Amino acid sequence: MQLSEKKRPRVMSGMRPTGKIHLGHLVGALQQWVRYCETADPYFEIADLHAYTTSFSDPQSIRDARNDMVIDWLAAGIDPQKCTIYLQSAIPEISELHVLLGMITPLSWLERVPTWKSQIGELGQHIATYGFLGYPLLQLCDIAIFRGERVPVGRDQLAHLEFGREVVRRFNYLYGEGKEILTEPEGTLSDFPEIPGTDGRKMSKSYDNAILIADDETTTAKKVRSMVTDPLKIRRHDAGRPEVCPVFALWKIVNPDHVPWVDRNCRSGELGCVQDKTDFAASLNEFLQPIRERRAEIAKDPRYVERIIDVGSQKARAIAAQTLHDVKRAMKLV
Amino acid sequence: MQLSEKKRPRVMSGMRPTGKIHLGHLVGALQQWVRYCETADPYFEIADLHAYTTSFSDPQSIRDARNDMVIDWLAAGIDPQKCTIYLQSAIPEISELHVLLGMITPLSWLERVPTWKSQIGELGQHIATYGFLGYPLLQLCDIAIFRGERVPVGRDQLAHLEFGREVVRRFNYLYGEGKEILTEPEGTLSDFPEIPGTDGRKMSKSYDNAILIADDETTTAKKVRSMVTDPLKIRRHDAGRPEVCPVFALWKIVNPDHVPWVDRNCRSGELGCVQDKTDFAASLNEFLQPIRERRAEIAKDPRYVERIIDVGSQKARAIAAQTLHDVKRAMKLV
Repeated sequence: MQLSEKKRPRVMSGMRPTGKIHLGHLVGALQQWVRYCETADPYFEIADLHAYTTSFSDPQSIRDARNDMVIDWLAAGIDPQKCTIYLQSAIPEISELHVLLGMITPLSWLERVPTWKSQIGELGQHIATYGFLGYPLLQLCDIAIFRGERVPVGRDQLAHLEFGREVVRRFNYLYGEGKEILTEPEGTLSDFPEIPGTDGRKMSKSYDNAILIADDETTTAKKVRSMVTDPLKIRRHDAGRPEVCPVFALWKIVNPDHVPWVDRNCRSGELGCVQDKTDFAASLNEFLQPIRERRAEIAKDPRYVERIIDVGSQKARAIAAQTLHDVKRAMKLV
Repeated sequence: MQLSEKKRPRVMSGMRPTGKIHLGHLVGALQQWVRYCETADPYFEIADLHAYTTSFSDPQSIRDARNDMVIDWLAAGIDPQKCTIYLQSAIPEISELHVLLGMITPLSWLERVPTWKSQIGELGQHIATYGFLGYPLLQLCDIAIFRGERVPVGRDQLAHLEFGREVVRRFNYLYGEGKEILTEPEGTLSDFPEIPGTDGRKMSKSYDNAILIADDETTTAKKVRSMVTDPLKIRRHDAGRPEVCPVFALWKIVNPDHVPWVDRNCRSGELGCVQDKTDFAASLNEFLQPIRERRAEIAKDPRYVERIIDVGSQKARAIAAQTLHDVKRAMKLV
């Protein structure tokens, strides 16, 4: 028997449309999202407004990534019947809530969020905008407007969530008259294993080291061939150290059964890197094949994807409008 | 022949519903607004969101002031047929634009606006919120969403307007592709004479020294009797110095014809302060009488006022929706 939707916790998550989905997203967030479709009432946000905090000067790339990202979600197994996929910028209530909650959010709370200073250091002073400073508040609004109960967060996002909970408490204290108008979201710590990219660093679009779901077999094989391995294993029969090899790390995800064999034969020097990469490329392509097939199928019908986003956004908006009404009533605005 | 509405410049102005309208508002902004009704296409904003930047902990007072303020506007001679009166919080497009423009607004531009530091010094650290920092940006959104062309500003607001113009230029540069999507508003410097309150300081709700339009004759006379005058004129026949007397300053507004007589007789010691205040209270009550009568008439029908706000807000929203659509299209969001 399926749990009734009412009893399922409302789980909020989202991704910024700033590039194509890669293997790191797939084995991290997306496989978790697929599970949420079975156990929760999940809301998945196409976080296009958030994308402008860092990519405001390249709006076309944000637009291009939007539908591609949703195609990847669906190809990865997200069932649109069991979740709500919506476009952030199609929910004006999120922006209205952002302005309202901004009135009660001390600036110092936002300045204290650790990502504020660290990301300016990483990405440059040009991203130090008013919107970027307010990004944890916008994130809270994404959650609070749907009365989200649970939010899967990485360790680096815990401070955002704690900030958001403080703002909710302050709102309820100032305007709730004893009632809980907004819901304090709870974080579910989800530390995914870090997936290495082709150069051994964390797989990331910005490092140009990612294996994309949308890549074809030839591109994938080529990327695998270019991967770094143990730098001390120079000749084929040199003994290798699997623990420093990114190809080995990916084997664990793509075909765990094969891992002991690779481990043994890499250490003994039986297995050369060229052979291992050839094996791995084949295995990875096999692993990705059903996803790619679904991807190609879905991509044939762009209107299907648009419809999923439209229907989800309409459903989301109805809930958002109700929450905003409660907020405005509590603030004596209506 | 009336100028057609199309040719009239769209003038934007507004007031925060944070207290009752007093003589200072009347002879400053409101008399100018009455003139705009004849010469421009004016939009008058009930700036309720702005009121939360400083009064977020007292939402009931903001709500109570809303309709009272509009009654005062109408009593002062604002013709609702010749202007658009709208409620800021009823135009979600303003908040949406605020979030979007926040993405391209360098934080340093907002921190440089002089009122940011000076008002925290005056009102206290508790108002240093995210919303308060973003208040000049929200002000720009009020104007830009209606493609406002002219904005009457006091000297202390010139920096806000210049900030707003910079944001518009940046937006058009980033997203306009050669076109002017948003309009750079022009400021019209309107330095009103500073109206003294009963204690001689600038008339202001927060100093509790204001003569309100809504006061009755007895309250007004009592307030006038309590006014400070020249502190060196202690006995009736002492020679007075009109230039330091707030009652004299108000005579200039209420009955300019009587000013030379008061000047002469105060200096000569013929006119005592008690007599002068009695004369002035009578003259002020006469000056305010037609406004009070209109006020009482309008206040009888709260639904009339609600209707004016509703109709104006609907009209305003249609324009705001069009502007926001253009903005979102330029940003590739729609």
